[in-house]
Amino acid sequence: MLIQKIIDIRHHKLFEISMICIIIFSALTVGARTFKQLEPYQDLLSYLDFLISIIFLVEIIIRYAAEGDFKRFIRDPWNIFDSIIVIGSLIPLESSNLVFVGRLLRIFRVLRLISFIPELRLLLNALFKSLPRLGYLVLLMFIFFYIYGAIGSTLFASINPFLWGDISKSMLTLFRVMTFEDWTDVMYEVMEFYPFAWIYFLTFIFFSAFAFLNMLIAIVVDVVNKENKLNSAESEDERHKQELMDGIKKISGEIERLKNRLG
Amino acid sequence: MLIQKIIDIRHHKLFEISMICIIIFSALTVGARTFKQLEPYQDLLSYLDFLISIIFLVEIIIRYAAEGDFKRFIRDPWNIFDSIIVIGSLIPLESSNLVFVGRLLRIFRVLRLISFIPELRLLLNALFKSLPRLGYLVLLMFIFFYIYGAIGSTLFASINPFLWGDISKSMLTLFRVMTFEDWTDVMYEVMEFYPFAWIYFLTFIFFSAFAFLNMLIAIVVDVVNKENKLNSAESEDERHKQELMDGIKKISGEIERLKNRLG
Amino acid sequence: MLIQKIIDIRHHKLFEISMICIIIFSALTVGARTFKQLEPYQDLLSYLDFLISIIFLVEIIIRYAAEGDFKRFIRDPWNIFDSIIVIGSLIPLESSNLVFVGRLLRIFRVLRLISFIPELRLLLNALFKSLPRLGYLVLLMFIFFYIYGAIGSTLFASINPFLWGDISKSMLTLFRVMTFEDWTDVMYEVMEFYPFAWIYFLTFIFFSAFAFLNMLIAIVVDVVNKENKLNSAESEDERHKQELMDGIKKISGEIERLKNRLG
Amino acid sequence: MLIQKIIDIRHHKLFEISMICIIIFSALTVGARTFKQLEPYQDLLSYLDFLISIIFLVEIIIRYAAEGDFKRFIRDPWNIFDSIIVIGSLIPLESSNLVFVGRLLRIFRVLRLISFIPELRLLLNALFKSLPRLGYLVLLMFIFFYIYGAIGSTLFASINPFLWGDISKSMLTLFRVMTFEDWTDVMYEVMEFYPFAWIYFLTFIFFSAFAFLNMLIAIVVDVVNKENKLNSAESEDERHKQELMDGIKKISGEIERLKNRLG
Repeated sequence: MLIQKIIDIRHHKLFEISMICIIIFSALTVGARTFKQLEPYQDLLSYLDFLISIIFLVEIIIRYAAEGDFKRFIRDPWNIFDSIIVIGSLIPLESSNLVFVGRLLRIFRVLRLISFIPELRLLLNALFKSLPRLGYLVLLMFIFFYIYGAIGSTLFASINPFLWGDISKSMLTLFRVMTFEDWTDVMYEVMEFYPFAWIYFLTFIFFSAFAFLNMLIAIVVDVVNKENKLNSAESEDERHKQELMDGIKKISGEIERLKNRLG
Repeated sequence: MLIQKIIDIRHHKLFEISMICIIIFSALTVGARTFKQLEPYQDLLSYLDFLISIIFLVEIIIRYAAEGDFKRFIRDPWNIFDSIIVIGSLIPLESSNLVFVGRLLRIFRVLRLISFIPELRLLLNALFKSLPRLGYLVLLMFIFFYIYGAIGSTLFASINPFLWGDISKSMLTLFRVMTFEDWTDVMYEVMEFYPFAWIYFLTFIFFSAFAFLNMLIAIVVDVVNKENKLNSAESEDERHKQELMDGIKKISGEIERLKNRLG
Repeated sequence: MLIQKIIDIRHHKLFEISMICIIIFSALTVGARTFKQLEPYQDLLSYLDFLISIIFLVEIIIRYAAEGDFKRFIRDPWNIFDSIIVIGSLIPLESSNLVFVGRLLRIFRVLRLISFIPELRLLLNALFKSLPRLGYLVLLMFIFFYIYGAIGSTLFASINPFLWGDISKSMLTLFRVMTFEDWTDVMYEVMEFYPFAWIYFLTFIFFSAFAFLNMLIAIVVDVVNKENKLNSAESEDERHKQELMDGIKKISGEIERLKNRLG
Repeated sequence: MLIQKIIDIRHHKLFEISMICIIIFSALTVGARTFKQLEPYQDLLSYLDFLISIIFLVEIIIRYAAEGDFKRFIRDPWNIFDSIIVIGSLIPLESSNLVFVGRLLRIFRVLRLISFIPELRLLLNALFKSLPRLGYLVLLMFIFFYIYGAIGSTLFASINPFLWGDISKSMLTLFRVMTFEDWTDVMYEVMEFYPFAWIYFLTFIFFSAFAFLNMLIAIVVDVVNKENKLNSAESEDERHKQELMDGIKKISGEIERLKNRLG
């Protein structure tokens, strides 16, 4: 039967390996387009690109057919992810204005590697899991950036409008200061007008270093929690003790009955 | 009754949500003032600012009235924090000299978000808790900066007075070296006169990296301590063993009495 | 006997110490060659170099003879490592073209210190063990660099061909951005044409910081795993409980038999 | 008695507090000397400096007298440390050539704060304890720097003699690359002659990042070891189990005797 054949193909080791090869090849063509030396081969690359799009489409159809049910197919978020990328790169965007957008969409086809290599999926899942814990920290950082940004643009806007012109520019400048990128140039410029501006910069750097330390704490706590889950294996320990107690109670009962008999 | 109504309002979910919205809106007006494009609307922003101040005042009064007792109100440090910020931004500072100060005070209203979102309060509490542990480390770092600063300004003051002029400038320069910001420029300049100045800079960098490592140690130790507290759940383990021992002792007693009866 | 004498020499403490000294001396001659002031002594250094090569060859022969069997000799990867380095530096490369290659090969003789100092071997083993765990992370990082690199060279190639000319240049530029090295210069240049380019740079920095955090997680998890192995000492705990259960069962059996006798 | 009075003084809380104040004051005079504005008061500062030296000498004598025995006095390394600093700053170095050295020796008097504040001593002890563990890592790093330095000065010496002239300059340049300080400038300069020089720089950066990760591993392992020591409290656990076993054995024995009596 056709469906059975499709399922066989879909679960064949060769199917996965050849798809990984095609994804890598697809990534290479995207990379190749950026080299000036390969410009004469643009037509060949466009043709290969079209071919890869077709292969990807066939592959998605095979996977969908192998699954049979639409609901079951979309239950796996990686299937949705793959479908969006494949269909997205099929949209014809050859008009000169949108040709860039079309090219960019094709870049994301490299991401399909993640859905094919389980270890990468595991890594990404771990990243996503740590997101909520970091969410509130990012909010706190944002509040703190906002306050320093507002102070910065209120005080320093007239000194250097490019760096401190408005709150959005100030926040970008502060992010730069946080990465220690030429932050002394920014500070010395401001200190000519406000000699105590170093307080602004040093407190800012200390605060952000603190936030970084807090991130570390969050991570270690996470790991300790995981460990505690492992320790929930202690419930087995508990069970053992219960067995011991039951044994002792049974003996007590037996002796009681012995006494009654003798009594 | 009025008081009961106020308490109802204060503990209504909508009260908190609307206050969070007003705080965010207040933050946006502070940010908006920094944009040149919005200068024509300064009057509107001033009016909004005044309105927000009134709303905040009403809110604090509601929270105070709902609490009833003044002592109970100030027991929560976040209430004091909120009151100071709200009252501080009410002070009329429209004279041209102090208008900047007035604006800056309004910036801190964004901090009120922290008192409204419990997760942020938790994060901040965690930061405050790690402060004492880091306090002595900061003192040690300061001593070490002071010594290097004194050496630096004694030896290098004549080479570059801007960077090494006195001990305070030297310490700022050393902080810059610690962040690796153009530290080689600072070093190469000095090395023209003292070819062995690299010893000064490299030992300094090694020391500060060491201090950073020590911070990490402090954090991990903290987490391990927390874990140990969790392990105090082992006292339950202890209790279980006691029960087992009691059971065994009871059996021994029973057998003893059996023997006595038989004997 | 000769072989016995060789084995005695090979396992003599003095053998190891003198070899370590010769390796350090060999490293010093390599270093000395780079100093202009020592150029008149090049002939002497060449002669010393030749002498060291001979000593190393003799040493390898002694170690091989002491081992006796070729299979046993190559079972230890450090023996292979040493042999390759020693034989590699024996190849005569005195023709003017290859003299550089010959010199470079001699540099690696310093690495032989690792095979002589057990603590260094332990450190290196620890590094190698953490490689597979980091392997997939590096792959994920590469995919992510590739996508950003492709976007970067598609959009920014015309702005600065030196930094964004093709995908390989873009990836090198992105690596530079990840190390925060003058990344704002790169960004500001691009922002003149694409005012929203900061999104590209900030998301990139956040992603790479995330990956760094993930590395940390991996490390801590590793340590926790090691700890769990230590906890496999708990299996002994298990054994103890089994003994207790056996004891209780035995008592139950005894009481049963008592009852039968009395009954 | 005099000795008793000295001991009373030495262990008086006021003694420590006043000494801490004098040390801080001594540090301030050292700092004050670096300010140009305070140059007219140099004579006063010299006088104060002399006074502080006398006070310190008296203090050391008091502490020595209170200890009584010389051997007991030098058993505490902090006593030796204090004595060296105090005596060192007494040496008359007022000749114009050595006046700098004299001043520098006085800077180290700030370090005496550490011997007076126990928390700082604890921190420093923790730092010293982690030194041996880091020692071999530093040796490994040095070997690795040496190899890269030798390669660097062999290949790049002619391109930029200031950065790569000999192996010591190369190693300083590599340290700069490790701190990411303008490393791309260094790399791009070299890449004009060796287009594949990025391999040299990127592998170097990866290796040093690896070493940093390894440091982290070392720290966490340290903490885990400490924790294991805490777990040696498990030996008590062991004792409990033994008691249980003894109880069960006793019961078995009793039942055996019961059987014998009945039989």
